[in-house]
Amino acid sequence: MSLLVTGSIAIDSVKSPYGQANDVLGGSAVYFSFAASLFTPVRLVGVVGEDFPQAFRDILIDRGLDLTGLETRTGSRTFRWRGSYTGDMNEATTLETRLNVLGEAGPKIPDAFADSRFVFLANTHPTLQRDLLGQLHGPELVVCDTMNLWINTERDSLIKTFGLVDGVVVNDTEARALTGQMNLVLAGRVILGWGPRFVVIKKGEHGVMLVTDESIVALPAYPTTEVRDPTGAGDSFAGGMMGYLARQGNCSEAHLRSALARGTVCASFAIEGFSLEGIRSVRPADVEVRLATYRRIVHFE
Amino acid sequence: MSLLVTGSIAIDSVKSPYGQANDVLGGSAVYFSFAASLFTPVRLVGVVGEDFPQAFRDILIDRGLDLTGLETRTGSRTFRWRGSYTGDMNEATTLETRLNVLGEAGPKIPDAFADSRFVFLANTHPTLQRDLLGQLHGPELVVCDTMNLWINTERDSLIKTFGLVDGVVVNDTEARALTGQMNLVLAGRVILGWGPRFVVIKKGEHGVMLVTDESIVALPAYPTTEVRDPTGAGDSFAGGMMGYLARQGNCSEAHLRSALARGTVCASFAIEGFSLEGIRSVRPADVEVRLATYRRIVHFE
Repeated sequence: MSLLVTGSIAIDSVKSPYGQANDVLGGSAVYFSFAASLFTPVRLVGVVGEDFPQAFRDILIDRGLDLTGLETRTGSRTFRWRGSYTGDMNEATTLETRLNVLGEAGPKIPDAFADSRFVFLANTHPTLQRDLLGQLHGPELVVCDTMNLWINTERDSLIKTFGLVDGVVVNDTEARALTGQMNLVLAGRVILGWGPRFVVIKKGEHGVMLVTDESIVALPAYPTTEVRDPTGAGDSFAGGMMGYLARQGNCSEAHLRSALARGTVCASFAIEGFSLEGIRSVRPADVEVRLATYRRIVHFE
Repeated sequence: MSLLVTGSIAIDSVKSPYGQANDVLGGSAVYFSFAASLFTPVRLVGVVGEDFPQAFRDILIDRGLDLTGLETRTGSRTFRWRGSYTGDMNEATTLETRLNVLGEAGPKIPDAFADSRFVFLANTHPTLQRDLLGQLHGPELVVCDTMNLWINTERDSLIKTFGLVDGVVVNDTEARALTGQMNLVLAGRVILGWGPRFVVIKKGEHGVMLVTDESIVALPAYPTTEVRDPTGAGDSFAGGMMGYLARQGNCSEAHLRSALARGTVCASFAIEGFSLEGIRSVRPADVEVRLATYRRIVHFE
């Protein structure tokens, strides 16, 4: 089934205890797309500025992404983020954000993409998320992400967006800030009360939790020793999850469970290198191999 | 197989967002014993003071614990701990510790217990842990716990103890402090280098990790919504783990995996009530029911 993602396309500069990378390709939609495309074709919708390097565009083209929805805006500059990781590297310290084109009008969904069946609205202003959703013709599964900024400044609008989607992906800090509930299962249930059918709570190195009306799923992160740059881990998780669901063309609870495991494996690849290094060289067969290892890691009689 | 535990027996006062309990029965050896006795008979070794209430002794007797190794020391007072939990309740704030009898000479292992096959040395001075170990006749499996105090003040002695045991149980903060490694798999491997065959790293609400030379196991915590008092969660985990291993009479990797799951379930019961309320009313059949739920929680195709 067709999978569409809207989100940021960024030029990142990242420092971690394992090195640094300056002016590299990043952004939520990019990480998402690289993970999702291990499972299914991906339609990318986003805006970059005139300064977006051809080399980066080539990276996206080489991955086989459908770039019909990639707008290059004249007179604008690409979104830039600079951050660093220290200690357990579970959370980035943002050193600089230049919104640039992300502070202007949002992207448009091309007519050719309006029939997309599976949709991921990566983090952006919740009003824009609803606007994008309105440009689609009755998609089968819509999942959205968000960030602390909107929780703090646009809470009502965000809750309105949650009321229009099937699933929400948030991290643990966001789930707690949003609901005032410290217990993540209870936080998930508060979010369910706003409309979505499922909530996925990402806990970084501690794994992920799925909360629905009927059940709870909890999976640990893949315990890799090769954490070099956690940037994009959450987006790669979401990409693996949505890519798998779109390929299966099904979003039953059983499929959601399987999708969480695929997302977990994709995130584990993404953090092994700076920028897209970790996920870029991965092939579908590598996902299967690591998935088999992951099964053993969580197995008990 | 016979299971022996040495550790603290305490009078606790605990406050959490869900209430408080003053002067209640606690201590590492007590929580451990209550969980372990769901699987196998338990030999308890520890020291209390003259002030130890008969009502508390009756609770231990009612549980069917073998109290041959419980010394009531004349002229001494029982160890007391007062603490509180806030926020995500993942870590206690210690408000007061009165070592009392724990600051004096350690307990002795009764001759009748010297043949114990499975042994858990709960947190105490690492020199005392080795002294206790020396009183046993070639046990089959020895696992020890520790705490930040000994990591900071008795690191060399602690590493010496680790060289004499089969398994080490520590929490994530301790593993990092002890090894200087932020990555928990790498931290586990540093500890393996000191001698033990396996390391179990407890991550509180985030579950548990097992590191051996051959493999890594990661399991999430049981996602309960009923967290009232996390005191004793780690000790209940260890009790469930060791109780299961002793019952099976086997500590192969497959059995260790199964034991981690039993420990996880025991910990989830322990935190549902203050003091021993959570675990005390649990029957072996309740463990099986929750274990079946836990299997569904971590299941994916």
